[in-house]
Amino acid sequence: MRTQVAIIGGGPSGLLLGQLLLKHGIDTVVLERRTKQHVLGRIRAGVLETGFAGLMREAGVGARMDKEGIIHEGTGIAHEGGLFRIDFEKLTGNHVIVYGQTEVTRDLYDAREAAGGTTLFECSGVRPQDLDTDAPFVTFLHEGKVVRLDCDFIAGCDGFHGPSRQAIPEEVRTEYEKTYPFGWLGILSETPPVEDELIYANSDRGFALCSMRNANLSRYYIQCALSDRPEDWEDEAFWTELKRRLPEDTAEKLVTGPSIEKSIAPLLSFVCEPMRWGRMFLCGDAAHIVPPTGAKGLNTAASDVHYLYHGMVAHYQDGESEGLDRYSETALERIWKTQRFSWSMTNLLHRFPEQSEFDLHVQAAELAFLSENEAAQRALAENYVGLPY
Amino acid sequence: MRTQVAIIGGGPSGLLLGQLLLKHGIDTVVLERRTKQHVLGRIRAGVLETGFAGLMREAGVGARMDKEGIIHEGTGIAHEGGLFRIDFEKLTGNHVIVYGQTEVTRDLYDAREAAGGTTLFECSGVRPQDLDTDAPFVTFLHEGKVVRLDCDFIAGCDGFHGPSRQAIPEEVRTEYEKTYPFGWLGILSETPPVEDELIYANSDRGFALCSMRNANLSRYYIQCALSDRPEDWEDEAFWTELKRRLPEDTAEKLVTGPSIEKSIAPLLSFVCEPMRWGRMFLCGDAAHIVPPTGAKGLNTAASDVHYLYHGMVAHYQDGESEGLDRYSETALERIWKTQRFSWSMTNLLHRFPEQSEFDLHVQAAELAFLSENEAAQRALAENYVGLPY
Repeated sequence: MRTQVAIIGGGPSGLLLGQLLLKHGIDTVVLERRTKQHVLGRIRAGVLETGFAGLMREAGVGARMDKEGIIHEGTGIAHEGGLFRIDFEKLTGNHVIVYGQTEVTRDLYDAREAAGGTTLFECSGVRPQDLDTDAPFVTFLHEGKVVRLDCDFIAGCDGFHGPSRQAIPEEVRTEYEKTYPFGWLGILSETPPVEDELIYANSDRGFALCSMRNANLSRYYIQCALSDRPEDWEDEAFWTELKRRLPEDTAEKLVTGPSIEKSIAPLLSFVCEPMRWGRMFLCGDAAHIVPPTGAKGLNTAASDVHYLYHGMVAHYQDGESEGLDRYSETALERIWKTQRFSWSMTNLLHRFPEQSEFDLHVQAAELAFLSENEAAQRALAENYVGLPY
Repeated sequence: MRTQVAIIGGGPSGLLLGQLLLKHGIDTVVLERRTKQHVLGRIRAGVLETGFAGLMREAGVGARMDKEGIIHEGTGIAHEGGLFRIDFEKLTGNHVIVYGQTEVTRDLYDAREAAGGTTLFECSGVRPQDLDTDAPFVTFLHEGKVVRLDCDFIAGCDGFHGPSRQAIPEEVRTEYEKTYPFGWLGILSETPPVEDELIYANSDRGFALCSMRNANLSRYYIQCALSDRPEDWEDEAFWTELKRRLPEDTAEKLVTGPSIEKSIAPLLSFVCEPMRWGRMFLCGDAAHIVPPTGAKGLNTAASDVHYLYHGMVAHYQDGESEGLDRYSETALERIWKTQRFSWSMTNLLHRFPEQSEFDLHVQAAELAFLSENEAAQRALAENYVGLPY
């Protein structure tokens, strides 16, 4: 079996990359470890930077997103019983689009299938090989047979636990990591969102986030102990705790209902350098993870896809290798800025066990300053809607 | 002995307050523990916010500052071998004035003496008393005699180690503190400053600052270990280390010379709440300390003087007590924002022993973001030139 670009991982980054390359006549094969149903069953956030939305449109996959996605021109930040707004549109002339990752992935699969792109599901034991030669290939087990896929390049879009990053020799790979001493307990409920926009809340009892998927599907989160389990939290206990962390006005109008999903996610900052090894390029979670505060996870994947896609097109169309050669450096420069933003939003909004009274006052002063200072709001807004590629 | 406002401490905040009150016909007595010569011999920074400069002019003491002070319309920030500029004037329409604290103090003494204000030097055993009554007083030993100074109010402008803060009962007083695991080794030399503006440098080897007093008096600092002593550092070793922490272009044109002063200062963030107890009001270092990064020490004192002076004038002229009643709350709101700024500048520019490789990359990303993002620069500049009173 042979293709130009072997894409390991059939999540949004692999599929988006595949679709963009397909538009330029570059052949790809996508290898996915799970079934399509499993991939589409994953519940993830979906706050898209306009740069991400632009890539979707460029890939010819933006129609439903533009129709059903909800434009958010700002976000609320709650602290000390009050609520202030960061007006993205006024501060940056830009906005974000709320459109679930599941929907993004579905649209990308529909487009890939319509275009006749090859996707192999339930591939196990995937191994990218001979990466530092001119003839890399991937081996894997598919429908009971060992398959070898020869290619020009490999895109490692296989997430944090995938084999691609591990294929970079340990002696050239550096991994940077920060763990946080809490998790996010999230529930999904078929209730109208409490506000039209997201609310990030810093409270004495810890962080809370009011988010949404659509007009009748709400997503709420509260900071919880890492030792908590979802089954420790009855719905009623969740709603009670959430309300305690929101401004009174907001809590009063919160519509509660049974949860249809409940889970706890740990928070992690992680970066792998380099993001390229020989003819393999890492994309998205395979190379980096951000804590969810600030909604950058999916968007950092899109950032990588942007650089890699342009590098590939320049290589195949114009014979220029600079984009691919500098991929790791270029992608990482933006990734580190986004890491900084996600880390600083996490620090600003959560309670940390090790915070001293001095630290708490400094955090409160930072929120007070942000609530009244346009420059600070604009710096936040520019990060939130997405730094330029 | 009787006065309207007893001012404990003859440093810049006490003297500035005294001069402003004098302008409004409010009688003060200043009690200073040391000699005038000692006070004027202290070497301190002197980067004045325009708010501070405005108070000096309002007190009728701004003439020499306006003549000899050096207006700085921006500052340099060095990192990773390069240098970028924060343009205060362009970003905020405002600037700072470099004018040594020693000069400020001298001008204030000259004005106080010319106006016939009473200042008692070498007062020991100063004790503010009966603060929570309508008849507070201060006792102290002066020229061999115990003196009692009756007054309406007491202004505690006696610095971090003075008796005023200690006179607030422990059960009502909360102290917030953060120490830093390094100090600043500073030297003064009769050499021309390396640049017209200050340079704050983040380097692999630690922080450095190029500052100045005037066209032929430079002040340079390097981050050092807390265990270092000034005598461990020969001038030559200091200059060598300073140059290593500056961009090559800057290091090359640095003019070195013998130090005329060399000292090590620890860095501390400290806030005492409340800043008012009964009829006593704390001002400046008596209530709070900031690390020197960002040059806020003297300016936070001026901030307190601003609120206290207006409160006193409203009380004596219009019989309105709100300014004095709310002094602690109002002053602290601005103090905490300045604490946050000083803390964040310190974090941004120093090396910390506990920094992980992840932390170092985040710090570098923050500097990279700041170097290219106007909103982030403006938020910094607005803090640097001084938040509005």
